Amino acid sequence: MSDNLVMTAMNYASDRPPASNPVKIMDLSLRDGHQSLFATRGRTEDMIPVAEMLDEVGFWALETWGGATFDTMHRFLNEDPWERLRTLKRYAKKTPFSMLLRAQNLVGYRNYADDVATAFVDRSAENGMDIFRTFDALNDYRNFETVVRQIKKSGKHFQGCICYTLTEPRLGGDVYNLDYYVGKAKELVDMGSDSICIKDMAGMIAPYDVYEMVKALKAVVTVPIHLHSHFTSGMASMSQLKAIEAGIDIIDTCMTPYAYRTSHPAIEPLVMTLLGTNRDTGFDIRKLAAINEVLEKQILPKYKHLLDDSKISIIDINVLLHQTPGGMLSNLVNQLREMDALDKIDEVYKELPRVRKDLGQIPLVTPTSQIVGVQTVNNVLHDTPEERYKMITGQVKDLCYGLYGKTAVPIDAEVQKKALKGYPRGEEPITCRPAEVLEPELEKAKAEIGDLAVDMDDLLIYAQFPVTGRKFLEWKYGRAEVPASVKPITMESVKKLDELVKKAKAGELVERKTDTPAKSERVRTFNVFLDNEYFNVEVDPTGDVPVMAAPRAAVAPVSAAAPVAAPKAVVTVAAAPNTSPAAEAHGTRMLAPMPGMIIKYLKNVGDVVTKGEAIVVLEAMKMENALVAPCDGIVKGIKLKSGDTVAKGAVLCFIE
Amino acid sequence: MSDNLVMTAMNYASDRPPASNPVKIMDLSLRDGHQSLFATRGRTEDMIPVAEMLDEVGFWALETWGGATFDTMHRFLNEDPWERLRTLKRYAKKTPFSMLLRAQNLVGYRNYADDVATAFVDRSAENGMDIFRTFDALNDYRNFETVVRQIKKSGKHFQGCICYTLTEPRLGGDVYNLDYYVGKAKELVDMGSDSICIKDMAGMIAPYDVYEMVKALKAVVTVPIHLHSHFTSGMASMSQLKAIEAGIDIIDTCMTPYAYRTSHPAIEPLVMTLLGTNRDTGFDIRKLAAINEVLEKQILPKYKHLLDDSKISIIDINVLLHQTPGGMLSNLVNQLREMDALDKIDEVYKELPRVRKDLGQIPLVTPTSQIVGVQTVNNVLHDTPEERYKMITGQVKDLCYGLYGKTAVPIDAEVQKKALKGYPRGEEPITCRPAEVLEPELEKAKAEIGDLAVDMDDLLIYAQFPVTGRKFLEWKYGRAEVPASVKPITMESVKKLDELVKKAKAGELVERKTDTPAKSERVRTFNVFLDNEYFNVEVDPTGDVPVMAAPRAAVAPVSAAAPVAAPKAVVTVAAAPNTSPAAEAHGTRMLAPMPGMIIKYLKNVGDVVTKGEAIVVLEAMKMENALVAPCDGIVKGIKLKSGDTVAKGAVLCFIE
Repeated sequence: MSDNLVMTAMNYASDRPPASNPVKIMDLSLRDGHQSLFATRGRTEDMIPVAEMLDEVGFWALETWGGATFDTMHRFLNEDPWERLRTLKRYAKKTPFSMLLRAQNLVGYRNYADDVATAFVDRSAENGMDIFRTFDALNDYRNFETVVRQIKKSGKHFQGCICYTLTEPRLGGDVYNLDYYVGKAKELVDMGSDSICIKDMAGMIAPYDVYEMVKALKAVVTVPIHLHSHFTSGMASMSQLKAIEAGIDIIDTCMTPYAYRTSHPAIEPLVMTLLGTNRDTGFDIRKLAAINEVLEKQILPKYKHLLDDSKISIIDINVLLHQTPGGMLSNLVNQLREMDALDKIDEVYKELPRVRKDLGQIPLVTPTSQIVGVQTVNNVLHDTPEERYKMITGQVKDLCYGLYGKTAVPIDAEVQKKALKGYPRGEEPITCRPAEVLEPELEKAKAEIGDLAVDMDDLLIYAQFPVTGRKFLEWKYGRAEVPASVKPITMESVKKLDELVKKAKAGELVERKTDTPAKSERVRTFNVFLDNEYFNVEVDPTGDVPVMAAPRAAVAPVSAAAPVAAPKAVVTVAAAPNTSPAAEAHGTRMLAPMPGMIIKYLKNVGDVVTKGEAIVVLEAMKMENALVAPCDGIVKGIKLKSGDTVAKGAVLCFIE
Repeated sequence: MSDNLVMTAMNYASDRPPASNPVKIMDLSLRDGHQSLFATRGRTEDMIPVAEMLDEVGFWALETWGGATFDTMHRFLNEDPWERLRTLKRYAKKTPFSMLLRAQNLVGYRNYADDVATAFVDRSAENGMDIFRTFDALNDYRNFETVVRQIKKSGKHFQGCICYTLTEPRLGGDVYNLDYYVGKAKELVDMGSDSICIKDMAGMIAPYDVYEMVKALKAVVTVPIHLHSHFTSGMASMSQLKAIEAGIDIIDTCMTPYAYRTSHPAIEPLVMTLLGTNRDTGFDIRKLAAINEVLEKQILPKYKHLLDDSKISIIDINVLLHQTPGGMLSNLVNQLREMDALDKIDEVYKELPRVRKDLGQIPLVTPTSQIVGVQTVNNVLHDTPEERYKMITGQVKDLCYGLYGKTAVPIDAEVQKKALKGYPRGEEPITCRPAEVLEPELEKAKAEIGDLAVDMDDLLIYAQFPVTGRKFLEWKYGRAEVPASVKPITMESVKKLDELVKKAKAGELVERKTDTPAKSERVRTFNVFLDNEYFNVEVDPTGDVPVMAAPRAAVAPVSAAAPVAAPKAVVTVAAAPNTSPAAEAHGTRMLAPMPGMIIKYLKNVGDVVTKGEAIVVLEAMKMENALVAPCDGIVKGIKLKSGDTVAKGAVLCFIE
């Protein structure tokens, strides 16, 4: 954006007098923006070019950390999450940073012990975090206690979230009504919340409902109210406007290239909308345009391939139909597809609200959305309609025991009893704060990881992510080779790929042989006319008459592929994977039912197991799945280990 | 969508009591939806599967025709536009149809004579059109007179549009202020408007501005007010909500897959937003979901490749910065790129508001956006800053003469004088209704096209589109072969292409030779089994010793391409256009400055011309460009004819 451009934009964006009650804006581009659109794959090096510019806009805060970033960075990007925090702080010195903290779950997927939670908040504050946006999937604020104590001790801003969910298609009904939210807000104030966030992670809050809610909250609490509403259902822009009219203090938005779809509305149209009103943001839209220019041209081409382009629609009206997070339904669809059971999708839609109700009408957000989703699939695929909950996941058992906290309404007594039958911690559910039953974990983690964790920051990576965290520390300290898959994508490779795709679309590409056989002395070259195209083919005679190479390796046996017109010719194909069927014949194969990562084997080679006994724990969809023996027998042929990634159908072991 | 799905969606969408003042909805999917997102390429066969379903929703109207559809259908789709109207009417019998009519421009790009205008409206009504949404780019309603007379005579609904444009970044200032719009609304009522549309083609109307405007219009007129606001800038959802709160009667939306980006907000989130209010649409969201399912899965995969995916952003904040239609700026950028002058973009941004002001501060919409855009580029590229308007387009001259109508403020006197110097119709601008100076055109058109136009519908295609219309009629009546490029895309070809792109991304493709060598006598044929299919393969040995054929045909003379390593081998390339350089040496070449279509040659071979004299009319960007002789001389070597498409740099003729 040049000065000329700025001139034509007139002066509406500069030097206007401040509004009487400007709405404050938090920018989510560097956390929820890329988490929503690009699988959280944003790299620190791609945030640095805009960090200073973002710092100049006048945002109330920049969300830069937490949520899935901690997991993704160390797991997929070979980046130290703590380092990002420190680095960005060097570029954006003025604007406070905010992080999404999953309360006692920290930035992982289970409740961690108090010692881990306290240390994590302490280190986050020390590394530069200013605002701790804290949520609990069940809105059970006992799960806030430990982290809030440390947030306050560190002298930082505690923003308490109320996860927004519905009993009916719109606000009201008998659980998640206005009284519920007002009550939760009061609880948060009593806990010392410096601000309160309405966290609408599924984009379900309707404009007139948020209007009513903000009015109601403003009537009973004095701390600032903050709206976080995903665009997923298409309502968020309208909801923001109504919330602003109702007097909300702070709104979450993204820069345009990170906005919309499952992310958040963009800031720029809101700036124009509020221009000249008492809620004018005061932002200079030209500064925003300059940031967008950098993002669109220099940064986002590297991430474009991560954008979900499976649909034309940019919103997901399933959110309106089912009141469930958009991503949750896609996950279910993928899960069913991987199990070749996509025909059961309608049963899943029907079962889902029943399971949610059975489990205490819990809000659907990480991790409860996965808990409800996976159990729903289990009920549909493995149980008869009469006997549901035959196969209950470990997480549902934990939930029934009380490990996640207190549900909004009691869990169905029969389901709870079934779930806790033989549960190792006890068949009687707890009623205390969940973390109270957890033993301290830091010492144990330190003993396990040893010197590989050089400091507390390292240890906190391992404590939350024992498998991938250890892997990362091995990369970090040069104890293991960094795989190519975690290395950055360059603009050069993006351009090459774009060029390739363009050519493929134009029909200028043909398939290549996947392996290159060594050329013999007798190679001859032919022009081959095939399917209306000429190919330049090198032929390596394997006999006395001219033969040809296939441009693509045939999977069928070579003998069957010999051209009729040239009986002695042999089509030389790429070396096929030589997996002899005989090698697999020594037992019942136990296959991975879905792609995932091996967390650990519960059995070793030689162990005697009975049908239904858990053999291996596979992480998929952020859930740990215990996979059970398909038959009685002895475990054989374990070739994989913790941390290995497996495809669907991979052989996990044999039961002989 | 199955019954099960419907069950879980609860009953919020059915049988609820009607609202006291339901907002009415027009669906634009079948016209503006695909015009905005898919270059107007939607085919009738792809509308039929949802036409009956759309008819059941309860829309106030379905926009199905007009705008660019008439042009695109006959030009690019080999479809008779009239036939679409009749066909869709057979499937959607209950809901009225609406079309976008460019007033005296009909569905073309210039003012047509009254006889053409009257016949066109008459035939549209006869073929099934119910609502004529009529606009004029200058809001000069004298251009409505002829069509309105016929709309009324045909007993149809006349919806008068006010094109929304701005003087300043927001509503107000000294031309396009609230008084202007109220005045225009009164004019429309006086003309007999059955409803009034605020036509915000660029997505520039801000929420609180439309609120104020709707309140003001409702205070002075009694006919229904209708809002048409593109999502381009990201404000439209909010603007719709504020318009509804202000009491607007009718809103334009699209089905979700056709919504957002440069199109319109989706209907589904609005249905949920208004649920239970006095403005509840009354729509069953499950019916809408069922339509979306068909569109997403069966129809839109065929159009996905037309979606502009050059940017990640789904909105264009240039609209907010420059108050110009999003597409207009992209066109300018493309035009500059084609002229290798992209470095001038900032000068263009600066010049654009100046040109607009010079030309009477005209609204920017087809065709005025192109008129202003092209003249802006001319001023920047061809003139010195001191002497602008050295090269004035024909359209600007027509505008200055008054052929488009009266501008909101007078055209700059100096520019007008410059433009009309030597203007064939006269140097003194007219002040009458523009079409009054046009001679009747139908008789002449009939004489030109002869029997190729079987009826009035055919004739009206030709009368508006003499070049492409004639081509289409030749296809229609079997007088010319239908080129492959206008044939429908099939799901099979889409899948194949997707597969190819996937493989290209995975690096499984390599480049192929683009040219087809001629077959030699030694060709041998084989049946080759390849990738589970048999192919008939012809093999042409290229020599006695192994040779490497060039992977791509050289454009250089054949003799030079003979591989050194194999003197006897000849790389046979596709018959290259055998333009000997010597043949080009007999004059100064006149090259196409941009890709386009030849409208007509104004000179013939042998004509003596002087430098600057117009030789050929090239259509590009929907604008006719008269290309002038680069020097004095005699015209030679015209090889092209009307209707031919040329690439940038194509030789149009020589001046000897």
